[in-house]
Amino acid sequence: MVRWLTAGESHGPALVGIIEGMPAGIPLTTSMVQDALARRRLGYGRGARMKFEQDQVTLVGGVRHGSTLGSPVAIEIANTEWPKWEKVMSADPVDADELDGLARNAALTRPRPGHADLAGMQKYGFDEARPLLERASARETAARVALGAVASSFLAELGIRTVSHTTAVGTVSVPEGAELPAPDDVTALDADPLRCFEKSTSDAMVAEVDAAHKEGETLGGVVEVLAYGVPVGLGSHVHWDRRLDSLLSGALMGIQAIKGVEVGDGFTTAARRGTAAHDEIVRGPDGYPIRTSNRAGGIEGGMSTGGVVRVRAGMKPIATVPKALRTVDTATGQDTKAHHQRSDVCAVPAAGVVAEAMVSLVLAQAVLQKFGGDSVAETKRNLDSFVASLEPL
Amino acid sequence: MVRWLTAGESHGPALVGIIEGMPAGIPLTTSMVQDALARRRLGYGRGARMKFEQDQVTLVGGVRHGSTLGSPVAIEIANTEWPKWEKVMSADPVDADELDGLARNAALTRPRPGHADLAGMQKYGFDEARPLLERASARETAARVALGAVASSFLAELGIRTVSHTTAVGTVSVPEGAELPAPDDVTALDADPLRCFEKSTSDAMVAEVDAAHKEGETLGGVVEVLAYGVPVGLGSHVHWDRRLDSLLSGALMGIQAIKGVEVGDGFTTAARRGTAAHDEIVRGPDGYPIRTSNRAGGIEGGMSTGGVVRVRAGMKPIATVPKALRTVDTATGQDTKAHHQRSDVCAVPAAGVVAEAMVSLVLAQAVLQKFGGDSVAETKRNLDSFVASLEPL
Amino acid sequence: MVRWLTAGESHGPALVGIIEGMPAGIPLTTSMVQDALARRRLGYGRGARMKFEQDQVTLVGGVRHGSTLGSPVAIEIANTEWPKWEKVMSADPVDADELDGLARNAALTRPRPGHADLAGMQKYGFDEARPLLERASARETAARVALGAVASSFLAELGIRTVSHTTAVGTVSVPEGAELPAPDDVTALDADPLRCFEKSTSDAMVAEVDAAHKEGETLGGVVEVLAYGVPVGLGSHVHWDRRLDSLLSGALMGIQAIKGVEVGDGFTTAARRGTAAHDEIVRGPDGYPIRTSNRAGGIEGGMSTGGVVRVRAGMKPIATVPKALRTVDTATGQDTKAHHQRSDVCAVPAAGVVAEAMVSLVLAQAVLQKFGGDSVAETKRNLDSFVASLEPL
Amino acid sequence: MVRWLTAGESHGPALVGIIEGMPAGIPLTTSMVQDALARRRLGYGRGARMKFEQDQVTLVGGVRHGSTLGSPVAIEIANTEWPKWEKVMSADPVDADELDGLARNAALTRPRPGHADLAGMQKYGFDEARPLLERASARETAARVALGAVASSFLAELGIRTVSHTTAVGTVSVPEGAELPAPDDVTALDADPLRCFEKSTSDAMVAEVDAAHKEGETLGGVVEVLAYGVPVGLGSHVHWDRRLDSLLSGALMGIQAIKGVEVGDGFTTAARRGTAAHDEIVRGPDGYPIRTSNRAGGIEGGMSTGGVVRVRAGMKPIATVPKALRTVDTATGQDTKAHHQRSDVCAVPAAGVVAEAMVSLVLAQAVLQKFGGDSVAETKRNLDSFVASLEPL
Repeated sequence: MVRWLTAGESHGPALVGIIEGMPAGIPLTTSMVQDALARRRLGYGRGARMKFEQDQVTLVGGVRHGSTLGSPVAIEIANTEWPKWEKVMSADPVDADELDGLARNAALTRPRPGHADLAGMQKYGFDEARPLLERASARETAARVALGAVASSFLAELGIRTVSHTTAVGTVSVPEGAELPAPDDVTALDADPLRCFEKSTSDAMVAEVDAAHKEGETLGGVVEVLAYGVPVGLGSHVHWDRRLDSLLSGALMGIQAIKGVEVGDGFTTAARRGTAAHDEIVRGPDGYPIRTSNRAGGIEGGMSTGGVVRVRAGMKPIATVPKALRTVDTATGQDTKAHHQRSDVCAVPAAGVVAEAMVSLVLAQAVLQKFGGDSVAETKRNLDSFVASLEPL
Repeated sequence: MVRWLTAGESHGPALVGIIEGMPAGIPLTTSMVQDALARRRLGYGRGARMKFEQDQVTLVGGVRHGSTLGSPVAIEIANTEWPKWEKVMSADPVDADELDGLARNAALTRPRPGHADLAGMQKYGFDEARPLLERASARETAARVALGAVASSFLAELGIRTVSHTTAVGTVSVPEGAELPAPDDVTALDADPLRCFEKSTSDAMVAEVDAAHKEGETLGGVVEVLAYGVPVGLGSHVHWDRRLDSLLSGALMGIQAIKGVEVGDGFTTAARRGTAAHDEIVRGPDGYPIRTSNRAGGIEGGMSTGGVVRVRAGMKPIATVPKALRTVDTATGQDTKAHHQRSDVCAVPAAGVVAEAMVSLVLAQAVLQKFGGDSVAETKRNLDSFVASLEPL
Repeated sequence: MVRWLTAGESHGPALVGIIEGMPAGIPLTTSMVQDALARRRLGYGRGARMKFEQDQVTLVGGVRHGSTLGSPVAIEIANTEWPKWEKVMSADPVDADELDGLARNAALTRPRPGHADLAGMQKYGFDEARPLLERASARETAARVALGAVASSFLAELGIRTVSHTTAVGTVSVPEGAELPAPDDVTALDADPLRCFEKSTSDAMVAEVDAAHKEGETLGGVVEVLAYGVPVGLGSHVHWDRRLDSLLSGALMGIQAIKGVEVGDGFTTAARRGTAAHDEIVRGPDGYPIRTSNRAGGIEGGMSTGGVVRVRAGMKPIATVPKALRTVDTATGQDTKAHHQRSDVCAVPAAGVVAEAMVSLVLAQAVLQKFGGDSVAETKRNLDSFVASLEPL
Repeated sequence: MVRWLTAGESHGPALVGIIEGMPAGIPLTTSMVQDALARRRLGYGRGARMKFEQDQVTLVGGVRHGSTLGSPVAIEIANTEWPKWEKVMSADPVDADELDGLARNAALTRPRPGHADLAGMQKYGFDEARPLLERASARETAARVALGAVASSFLAELGIRTVSHTTAVGTVSVPEGAELPAPDDVTALDADPLRCFEKSTSDAMVAEVDAAHKEGETLGGVVEVLAYGVPVGLGSHVHWDRRLDSLLSGALMGIQAIKGVEVGDGFTTAARRGTAAHDEIVRGPDGYPIRTSNRAGGIEGGMSTGGVVRVRAGMKPIATVPKALRTVDTATGQDTKAHHQRSDVCAVPAAGVVAEAMVSLVLAQAVLQKFGGDSVAETKRNLDSFVASLEPL
């Protein structure tokens, strides 16, 4: 059982995440986490704020001399802009006088459509949105990416590697049947402005972003995560909430702004006929059964099949639209326009990196569920002996 | 916290489900559960087997004189075909001699593509598929529908009602912008051969099923679940696994054969521009803020907004295709064709009923999370006082 | 992750339990469960009712031909007295006229001290105790014992065996330092009227029960559970709720009427000085480190040490005391005497069997946590390779 | 559902805890947490180290201007001795040369009896104890006390207050029937050298500690936690793991060095006869039913009764005994004496404070389970309306 929690507000002193239940012996360093976080800032169409969000990472617990201890791993990501916010977001009480003069402390009473603002104010009984938008912000995903780096390092020790890429931005999509990136393509992907693996599509995406920017618009899109080297048998058919597809779907839909999730060919498969929808099985060259296609995304009956696990997430456009949306001022009752706080056009490339982290966290949990182990060596030994127990036909 | 487990094999003596954590005072009778189960058998394109699956329901625990007790509710659904299977699926050992003569007991060594068969055999170390396909079968969803009836009755006491309908079968889809069914349309929906709310589309779906049947094909499709009367504030933005969209997504993707899930406009929204993707907020006639559209599917920031909750699930075609798929015989290593066990063309209408059950279970849990309560009266009192605390602008 | 739920009321049609997450390949038959349940009926000082409670067991799911399938195991225990209760405890509504004439249906408005009655009526909003005392009854533990039989059979495959015995009844206790029973002593223990391993103490306990019976009194006592063959490393120090002692303690205190729990020497150790409180470590004959005593009960730092796991539970006297206790009639507000429904003097021997089941369930979960495995063979392979990896000094 | 995790090693840069699921509006400030932590350092017989452990507290997330936000609350407790340990406990790799010279980095190959050392080394595959003793240390409980302060502040808003006191140190016990402390006695208790409420017993305890100190011994003891103002109906009889006694027991046994737990009169009750073991019920002066005693510790049928909740925990003597215990050097295989790292004689008073934190966390969770609520106001409204719904007789 792996458990993890994140905490921290967008403009608070820091984000912090704790992951509990990971084995001892996972390679982990500050720079590994920083590298993961830097990838989250990638992407064309990000506004100025991302540049300020340089990440000061501290491994607070669970790691010693570059290796995990089996105890909970805690990672803190300091907010470099904290000095600007230390009154407004102070945990301790601050004199009303001091706060009154601060523009940043003004009550946010114009809830933004597409955000948590209005529902959050009502649910928690707040009379303005600051107390909840600080947490609802996608900044929180940095903590997930940090914890995902732990999972990812663990998986790498077992030969499991993930790749994410952008398959659509707005109306521009990678053509069907395009080649899928492999783990060794990550560097190239990260260098692409939109983390798209198809050069001509990437160019079109850049144009789409530019056009949207000019029009005061924002864009969503679709990201895909691939996991290579996943052994057969993660997840299970025996109960719905053990199904790997269910777990992955919950994890991806749990990312801010995601509104759709697919496993394998997803909705496309729903429109196919039976003979064109599944993956036939044949005897492979080395005697093991193999599938002739991977429409299922490497998951059948809720279990990994040994093929490439493939999932997609559809992200809505950024809700803070420059061409501001209508809302109502909860303080006055007057119709108005929404607060407009930042100017990213498109966060899809970052969503891919976050999705990769979530997939890694789910897979790490599924690996430990099946193989157990309190150290990487023990998990690996168990995994290897299971794979060796599978016999050729 | 609501917990629930189901058990039972497809051809075992019975399915059984236990749901724990539901309050006392929920109306529940045997016939309410039977009615829910009968709806699961609806749908054009189902084969002969469904008719045999008449459901003998026993409320084993947690209910007295038509009302729940607050204790775990256990529901058993007997298998009327059990006499045919009592040797083959006997829990206790059976003489090898007795089994040898039984065709039903023959080892299933030709794993069916698109099913759990091959991955399950490898994961659990079985040399044939019977021991796992019995559980992987969609028959198990009957237990979920039974438990969903408990959740649904609870929600109804609070004014929350769900509706499901079929929006696509194969390549035939309900046109965009079509009217959505309301709770009072359920009878009409259930009377439609495909549980489609749009008459002309339904006709086209029937034709699609007929064509597929003739060609030895199977079909998938898309179902949508709507929940009316959901108060603002279920789920939360504070942690990913509290998000209502995440919970719904995991629940829907946890249904057999589902490969895609959407909340609100889902992937369509991912292709929109920001100004056309969100739901603007205005002051409603009674002074409360309302949204001018419901693209978000009634969920923003992982919380219900007070609008209609709307989710969709994409189902792949039935994997047991009459025009049989290639596979390998694990006993002989020879390439062969898959077992072909039943002849449904399309299970999409049933999937809608199952999806409705899963949505009800998630919503019931979310209601209790926010409002607590050990009796329906207590939950309702808490919910009502919360709603009353929301002030007009 | 192992999960399990039980359901059913004391006088309902049946109890049912589902355990989910156990591997495939565990030997399990109807008679194994019946044997476990028969042991729960043991004990001097049980009243007439226990004889009626003959158990009709059905393995509803998860088992085929004497072996588990990896799917949820469901066990049903029918209530042979059901015909007497089928109106009073009917799940479906019953005509008021029919109920009115039934003595068994009379409202229980005199809540019994020491029972769940009063708190349960207030919590759930009932105006009499029947709706909750049916569930609060210790009859429910039969379902735990049935599920414990699954856990126990799994553990036996791994060489882990549990024994329970009575160490005190009322004021009669086994002398300190008495020999502990081993797994092969179970038959002898079960033959003892109080499941006490010390003949002369057992005799004194019989006398104590007789005396109490004569005086219209009831008795409590203490049971101890021992687990042999537990490998080092179950549980963990890394988080409080992974500690094996915490898990065992919660499980034992979760049995009806248990008011105290000890691990190893428990409260006795709390009164010792440091040099006499711990288990010194020396090099054993085969080069492995061993402990020279087992005051810790086989658990240090929340982890099993490889020694015998030893825990105790203290049970209060049966709360339905023949010499009836004072209470108040909630219907009239008058002071009165409590209902007196059954006449057992002492349920301590049965509590030992229930405690054994709970310990088995916790250990099975802890084994799977550390060693994983979807089949007994896989778990055993992983466990064996771990043990083999421990090196002599 | 409240979840919480702690992380951090004893000599790492900091401890950190996250608690998720607490409502908005709980008063919380840095100094409230510091005060709670200061209480954990109380107690006669603590060695020099406690004085160095001054706590620098940071509320990292979930709190703004003295009030919780409903988001996860993260609290960090910096280690003021970190500069001395920053190489030895560095998360990032350190040059072997640099480490070689450091005495603090010497491999700990003499596992201490009574500690996690040996079992932990074997479980996690470490060749020395440092990597696990850092986490197994009782220092970790500081994080629990910090999180407990959040729970405690929440409970206080609802009128629920906890008190802990020492009832035994070594062989010195508070006499049976002694008066119990009330919430207003906390200041007096904290001023007592052993947090004992009985002056003459406290004096005897001081003498016991002095004697033990002189002899190179350590001492354990017993602490009791009382919770006042707990409404009827927390926990439940319906499933074992919802029982309040089970939850409290697991929480207390999950504290380092605790070997026994009692609810109410615990093992004493197990030796009583039925008529003297339970709490009779009578009509109270205001018409509500009341109990004439509180042997049950305020919990019947797994539910709070509305009386004072009372639980006890028995702590073994500190395992690092000055008069060192025998062990084996795992590097050489030679019999030797255990490492002796610190010199506290008795940590029982601190255990009381930790136990109080654990009880507060369990009660906060149970309150939210029954009453729900996303803000203190909402929870309080629901609780009050429940209490108001209870009718006098």
